[in-house]
Amino acid sequence: PPPPPPAAMLDVAMGGGMGGDDGANQDTVRRQNLGAVLRQMHRAGQLSRAALTTATGLSRSTVAGLVADLEDRGLVDEGDAVVTGSPGRPSPVVHIRGDAVAVVAADLQISRVTTAVIGLGGDVRHRTSRDRPIGRREVEATLDQLCELIEQAVVDAGATQIIGLGVSVPGIVRHDDGHVHLAPNLGWTDVPLGDLLRERLAASRTAVAVGNEADLGALAEHVHGAGAGTRDMVYVSGATGIGGGVIVGGRPLTGVAGYGGEVGHMVVNPDGLACRCGSVGCWETEAGQAALLRHMGWADSDEQRVVAAVLSEAAAGSARAGTALAEVGRWLGIGLATLINIFNPQRVVLGGLYARAFPHLIDAVRQEVDGRSLRPSRALAAITPAMLGEDSALLGAGELALPPLLADPTVVERTAGDPRTQTQPA
Amino acid sequence: PPPPPPAAMLDVAMGGGMGGDDGANQDTVRRQNLGAVLRQMHRAGQLSRAALTTATGLSRSTVAGLVADLEDRGLVDEGDAVVTGSPGRPSPVVHIRGDAVAVVAADLQISRVTTAVIGLGGDVRHRTSRDRPIGRREVEATLDQLCELIEQAVVDAGATQIIGLGVSVPGIVRHDDGHVHLAPNLGWTDVPLGDLLRERLAASRTAVAVGNEADLGALAEHVHGAGAGTRDMVYVSGATGIGGGVIVGGRPLTGVAGYGGEVGHMVVNPDGLACRCGSVGCWETEAGQAALLRHMGWADSDEQRVVAAVLSEAAAGSARAGTALAEVGRWLGIGLATLINIFNPQRVVLGGLYARAFPHLIDAVRQEVDGRSLRPSRALAAITPAMLGEDSALLGAGELALPPLLADPTVVERTAGDPRTQTQPA
Repeated sequence: PPPPPPAAMLDVAMGGGMGGDDGANQDTVRRQNLGAVLRQMHRAGQLSRAALTTATGLSRSTVAGLVADLEDRGLVDEGDAVVTGSPGRPSPVVHIRGDAVAVVAADLQISRVTTAVIGLGGDVRHRTSRDRPIGRREVEATLDQLCELIEQAVVDAGATQIIGLGVSVPGIVRHDDGHVHLAPNLGWTDVPLGDLLRERLAASRTAVAVGNEADLGALAEHVHGAGAGTRDMVYVSGATGIGGGVIVGGRPLTGVAGYGGEVGHMVVNPDGLACRCGSVGCWETEAGQAALLRHMGWADSDEQRVVAAVLSEAAAGSARAGTALAEVGRWLGIGLATLINIFNPQRVVLGGLYARAFPHLIDAVRQEVDGRSLRPSRALAAITPAMLGEDSALLGAGELALPPLLADPTVVERTAGDPRTQTQPA
Repeated sequence: PPPPPPAAMLDVAMGGGMGGDDGANQDTVRRQNLGAVLRQMHRAGQLSRAALTTATGLSRSTVAGLVADLEDRGLVDEGDAVVTGSPGRPSPVVHIRGDAVAVVAADLQISRVTTAVIGLGGDVRHRTSRDRPIGRREVEATLDQLCELIEQAVVDAGATQIIGLGVSVPGIVRHDDGHVHLAPNLGWTDVPLGDLLRERLAASRTAVAVGNEADLGALAEHVHGAGAGTRDMVYVSGATGIGGGVIVGGRPLTGVAGYGGEVGHMVVNPDGLACRCGSVGCWETEAGQAALLRHMGWADSDEQRVVAAVLSEAAAGSARAGTALAEVGRWLGIGLATLINIFNPQRVVLGGLYARAFPHLIDAVRQEVDGRSLRPSRALAAITPAMLGEDSALLGAGELALPPLLADPTVVERTAGDPRTQTQPA
């Protein structure tokens, strides 16, 4: 049996714009500025125009023009002026609009497929889940089911314009084209999922992006959850394996092809247990769900309900459960110390199993982290549970489809529907 | 005894410009474009105008105007047109000029201080080294010596305008202000080196940036050495400890305060040897110089010449030396597998001890990496020795002082010296 979790994401998921060595033409500046304002709104949901001015570094009049433009495109709404805490005139409050434009997000899991329509601001609508009672290797059957749900989501979206599709997969995904190298939980090896979906959805000309579930979880927690407001964040999610995603300087760590972030395969115990990836002593052999069940003396299982059983034993005061959770916490802390030393993050967000078991694990985690990470980095790293629960991969898949719009909001055309905006400057 | 190598660097060392969520005002675009052209020239040394056009994505006429502007500022020279391989008219070749503007770089080491004047393009001039036979805790004495060498470098630079100072320190450095938290090899704890230097150099109003030597080594190898042309690179340098620096998506990994990249303190053997950082089983306890000497049966030593002794034994066919090097290579490979899984780099650059011993280590390294890293990531990661040798930290310190110029070349004024340029458009 082969490897697990992994990595894939757009190079500049939230960034867009013109970092790096590219030059800028004058005529791209307005698009970039529209994008800068829309990104702020997408994250915050609502902001006063004054706050937008501060956040973007643009002038008041420029921001007023940009907001009017975005309003024309149905992407934001401007409400009444409010008095802000800061001196100056009352400033109108701008709200993100989740209804004009949206993406379809899909979360492909071992036993379930979930789709939803997600508007700007992370507004999840029309969620549909379907069991996936099909053979583990039935790529075609999965595609049939997935496409049926996606088409239904587009219908459900009604008048909302769908600008892209993002798909979360528990596997190693190449970010350029969404090729799935390996998804052991699905039984997939080298499935060109991105191309297959693009082919099937060709009629709708929907842009398709595919990412790794842990990377997408990290992205969602960074934009809408426990990592909001940080520039450097490590996300570690426990399940059958350990998934991870890292935000470095505000941008998702992808690596050259999108495979980065595979923290579950850090070598923490070189003479330890064999890992399904072919290595020995990977982090997930010591701190994953299998390790927890091993310490309980139970049979191995991929199912989440066995974790619930351990947690209820622990809540009832079982010493065995307490010890098992502490041992997993100890190894979790050993690996986190490494990640804190490498990434110097502001926040470490624990998801999946680790979020559910957080109160039972955190003392053992802290003890190892305190003893093993470098003092200056340790002092800055807050360790917190994830906030988005089971929605994280789905929300992250939605984020994966948004960068083209967030980089250049003019991909959505102006509508002539609102007479207020007809006289605004372009 | 406390921790070792570490991390610090400007957030966007090569980037500058307007990534992220900031908006752009029209009047900053030209500066950004000048910066984009100058960054290309700084890395490449020389490029045809046609190649600059391709690299920046700007129009031919825009690039021609930008090059003329940079020529007015003494930053580049335009030579005769050459016929390039591509179709079209012959294109003039642009050369970087290292003589008009430069930085002073300083490399502070345990027993030596080195300074140099470094021009654009990485041209190292007026190198001066001085022994540092002063008490390990003599911060003031070190500052005296450092400032004397810096002032001498400014004198040596003659007519060349000095635009900043970059300092490399073997310690954990906060990137905002150059505060040295801990530099065990210097015997320093909480030395506000940046502020102390700014105070002493106040008269010259020199901008001062301080960084960690391994981070700076990574930066230098990325811009001018074995990592040139990559966007995702891991640099690992062996010495008393293990230093590391990582380039993620073209930018140095810093973490929130600059402490990131501390790969030497990855936990690779939780029940192994005590590390001077206070943890147990850090990578550097198994793959650092001390481990090599331990396997030789020799006394521990910080000095580089003992490594030379091991290498000459190995070259002479000593089985003991061969085994000792292979054992260090094995642990080096175990840690590199983790880094390849986390970062999915295009290139892994081995410096210091590992560059010198590369032929003796690489088989053992490859065996572990092949067995322990995920196949898709392993396939993309080339492992190569560093190219810049002992200059890497010095060159990196120079890079640390360049970003203000590379982000906005108008910090250097136009000169009226060259009549050719008087009629060029501004």
